[in-house]
Amino acid sequence: MSPTPSATAPHAAVDPSRHLIGLRDMPRERMLTLLDRAQHYAEGHDARSALAGTAVCTLFFEPSTRTRLSFQLAAQRLGADVLNFDASTSSTSKGETARDTLKTIEAMGVRGFIVRHKHDGAVAALAAEAAEGTHLINAGDGRSAHPTQGLLDMLSLRQAKGGDFSSLKVLIVGDVKHSRVARSDLHALRTLGAGQIRVCGPRALLPDDDTLKDCIVSQDFDAALDGVDAVMMLRLQRERMEDGLVASLEDYHRDYGLTAARLARADAEAVVMHPGPMNRGVEITDEVADGPRSLVLRQVANGVAVRMAVLESLLRR
Amino acid sequence: MSPTPSATAPHAAVDPSRHLIGLRDMPRERMLTLLDRAQHYAEGHDARSALAGTAVCTLFFEPSTRTRLSFQLAAQRLGADVLNFDASTSSTSKGETARDTLKTIEAMGVRGFIVRHKHDGAVAALAAEAAEGTHLINAGDGRSAHPTQGLLDMLSLRQAKGGDFSSLKVLIVGDVKHSRVARSDLHALRTLGAGQIRVCGPRALLPDDDTLKDCIVSQDFDAALDGVDAVMMLRLQRERMEDGLVASLEDYHRDYGLTAARLARADAEAVVMHPGPMNRGVEITDEVADGPRSLVLRQVANGVAVRMAVLESLLRR
Amino acid sequence: MSPTPSATAPHAAVDPSRHLIGLRDMPRERMLTLLDRAQHYAEGHDARSALAGTAVCTLFFEPSTRTRLSFQLAAQRLGADVLNFDASTSSTSKGETARDTLKTIEAMGVRGFIVRHKHDGAVAALAAEAAEGTHLINAGDGRSAHPTQGLLDMLSLRQAKGGDFSSLKVLIVGDVKHSRVARSDLHALRTLGAGQIRVCGPRALLPDDDTLKDCIVSQDFDAALDGVDAVMMLRLQRERMEDGLVASLEDYHRDYGLTAARLARADAEAVVMHPGPMNRGVEITDEVADGPRSLVLRQVANGVAVRMAVLESLLRR
Repeated sequence: MSPTPSATAPHAAVDPSRHLIGLRDMPRERMLTLLDRAQHYAEGHDARSALAGTAVCTLFFEPSTRTRLSFQLAAQRLGADVLNFDASTSSTSKGETARDTLKTIEAMGVRGFIVRHKHDGAVAALAAEAAEGTHLINAGDGRSAHPTQGLLDMLSLRQAKGGDFSSLKVLIVGDVKHSRVARSDLHALRTLGAGQIRVCGPRALLPDDDTLKDCIVSQDFDAALDGVDAVMMLRLQRERMEDGLVASLEDYHRDYGLTAARLARADAEAVVMHPGPMNRGVEITDEVADGPRSLVLRQVANGVAVRMAVLESLLRR
Repeated sequence: MSPTPSATAPHAAVDPSRHLIGLRDMPRERMLTLLDRAQHYAEGHDARSALAGTAVCTLFFEPSTRTRLSFQLAAQRLGADVLNFDASTSSTSKGETARDTLKTIEAMGVRGFIVRHKHDGAVAALAAEAAEGTHLINAGDGRSAHPTQGLLDMLSLRQAKGGDFSSLKVLIVGDVKHSRVARSDLHALRTLGAGQIRVCGPRALLPDDDTLKDCIVSQDFDAALDGVDAVMMLRLQRERMEDGLVASLEDYHRDYGLTAARLARADAEAVVMHPGPMNRGVEITDEVADGPRSLVLRQVANGVAVRMAVLESLLRR
Repeated sequence: MSPTPSATAPHAAVDPSRHLIGLRDMPRERMLTLLDRAQHYAEGHDARSALAGTAVCTLFFEPSTRTRLSFQLAAQRLGADVLNFDASTSSTSKGETARDTLKTIEAMGVRGFIVRHKHDGAVAALAAEAAEGTHLINAGDGRSAHPTQGLLDMLSLRQAKGGDFSSLKVLIVGDVKHSRVARSDLHALRTLGAGQIRVCGPRALLPDDDTLKDCIVSQDFDAALDGVDAVMMLRLQRERMEDGLVASLEDYHRDYGLTAARLARADAEAVVMHPGPMNRGVEITDEVADGPRSLVLRQVANGVAVRMAVLESLLRR
């Protein structure tokens, strides 16, 4: 195995009842069970004895403080011991492989790993190496998957719109091509039977494979907004300017920034979502981000609840 | 709101029973209650159930390991869950505003924030944005305030000299101009009715506003020491040399370094204080720092006790 | 005391029942007691109340994530509060001495310190400054000692080979000159009465003092392996190439890399050990590292158990 796991067979040999790698293959029943349990935790319940004596470790090969904190809080509320391993500044710099790092911390008695990695499929590849009794949760790998984000988005949507997704028109806007959030949202929306999925963004930022196979794709943000029930905005990474895929922040904002005026085209009860951190004034204005239709902070709150449900589901003996 | 909160109205709209921003407006009764409770904790009492199930987060936009550890220990001894957010290396570097960072972690269920920031008024500005039920503690902002340091200094002084401050002559020495510690000490000393406050330092390092309005100000350290009951030394930041405000460490030590010979001018029972970390051989010699009149380590111990009292007072339901 | 403690009198004035600095002077009875207690913890027992309410702090002047995590897990399983102080990025950079850092955190109420330092004797020098009631554990200093690694190696060897070391032939391979692991292993093997200690490595990487006084020293790895019961491989630091002490990784691997073919020269039941992190393909091949004779992950697991035993032994009231 090379230092960085390859992405060739991302889901190979990974048991979905042991690890959470992505949402593509998660059965509808399991998704609903997780959302129900997350709803329970979102209502403020703790379960301090659920994982008492269990050690979990955040293993981030790519930094992300807010995701790490959210998992850490979730694990603490379940009574677990939490360790943080920032693999971007640690012994991986001494040439240790990701696999050896995992196997070493696993040997210390850690049973749950929350893994972020910049390469597609890296978490699945690591999961295939894990000992029996070890559980991995993908906290984001490359552009592939960010399953707890997908689940928290579904929970937020369900709280706002009810459990019947078949009547919902959902619009995803922005850099879908490079977004693991969008991919996990798409899988979850399909599994839950969303009525219509629209996708909108500049052509250079939309995937050209089968990611959007059943979506209504458009470059016209105003038209795409027409009558939708939910708008899921994506963060514009500043690398896209360096890549030359986006001309300027001003251009992007003009074409794909969500303003209050634009939002008026959506359904009067439409909700606005964003995975954060937001580029205010680029993909979203302050007025919308902080406005009455925004679910942004609700999403964050639901993130802890979803992660509690996932950790409990995988790790509770 | 711009990425960095401005300092224009530092105390605007901040409820002092919800947040601890500074000591200027703290009533004497509240200060005494906090000191009494801190004294209780300084005597070794724990209160592991006081904040059980409550999450607090250190949110440092400027690094300070020792202050962070002191708050962390205080929170642990109250049974809280503690998270650390080092904002100097985190998503703020992705352009997220301080406000969004606060609101995000708040949405995760964190109720207490211990905030350090390099800009004056930044903590008050953030507190004005906090949701009901969220409490902020200023762990140092710019040159404005470091209220828990002020309180721990008062506790240390009270332990050494008794509760009647009216007979005390206290001398503060050094870079008062850039010192949040000195400002918080000055407010607290006034509130507790210190008999005489003297301030001594090179003219370039003394404030020219009303900070020292009721103080006896001098450039002559030897004269200023005459008969004082307490000498509060300040750390000389090395930036002062780069700023050109201090010619050299040697010059500074000659004029404003506290030596045993100099200390002999003070009252025979005088105590010596320093907020740390000390520049040994610059503002203070080893002999004095480690000598029988030094309260330096007592101050550190009292820091944990004061922070327990503050956290409990704001966060206990 | 200068900012960095000197190594002139590494063990001076350090009480071995209060601190764990090295294994050289540890009585056999104490070593056996620690190993027995570690064996108890290695079998999965927790002792969550043993150090409840006790604060310990990792104080690493040289980074080492895996050792830090191992101590952190050990302390958590004993119910302690754990703080991490990364001294390579903290106020030591403000010019604070190691001694002042220790005394400050000690004053906060921390009773146990797990200290790593790049200089020989630094931990002993700090221990000599510690207040009564404070306990230091050496987590590696310079090339001097890494006592918990030595103990975990003995525990691993004992589990594999039984308690009678007098019949064992043990071979240590590699950069003994710069290795604190090797020094601690040598002391422990002597104390436990190992039958024969062989050492093998390039001449430039072997110490020329009395470190190897009773060892059979050789440069011929194949010959040295003949009939041994345990092979303890050392990590080759890449600095050795920069130092000019090793010509190339390829040369090193050819002469001192442990391959399956070479291992066949050892006893059929021989075990292979490595303190990690491994340079796969340099001092050890994948086949051996992951093979049936490898104790590498068992060593890691035993590390937590040994550290529990040490922490409990020193800190339990």
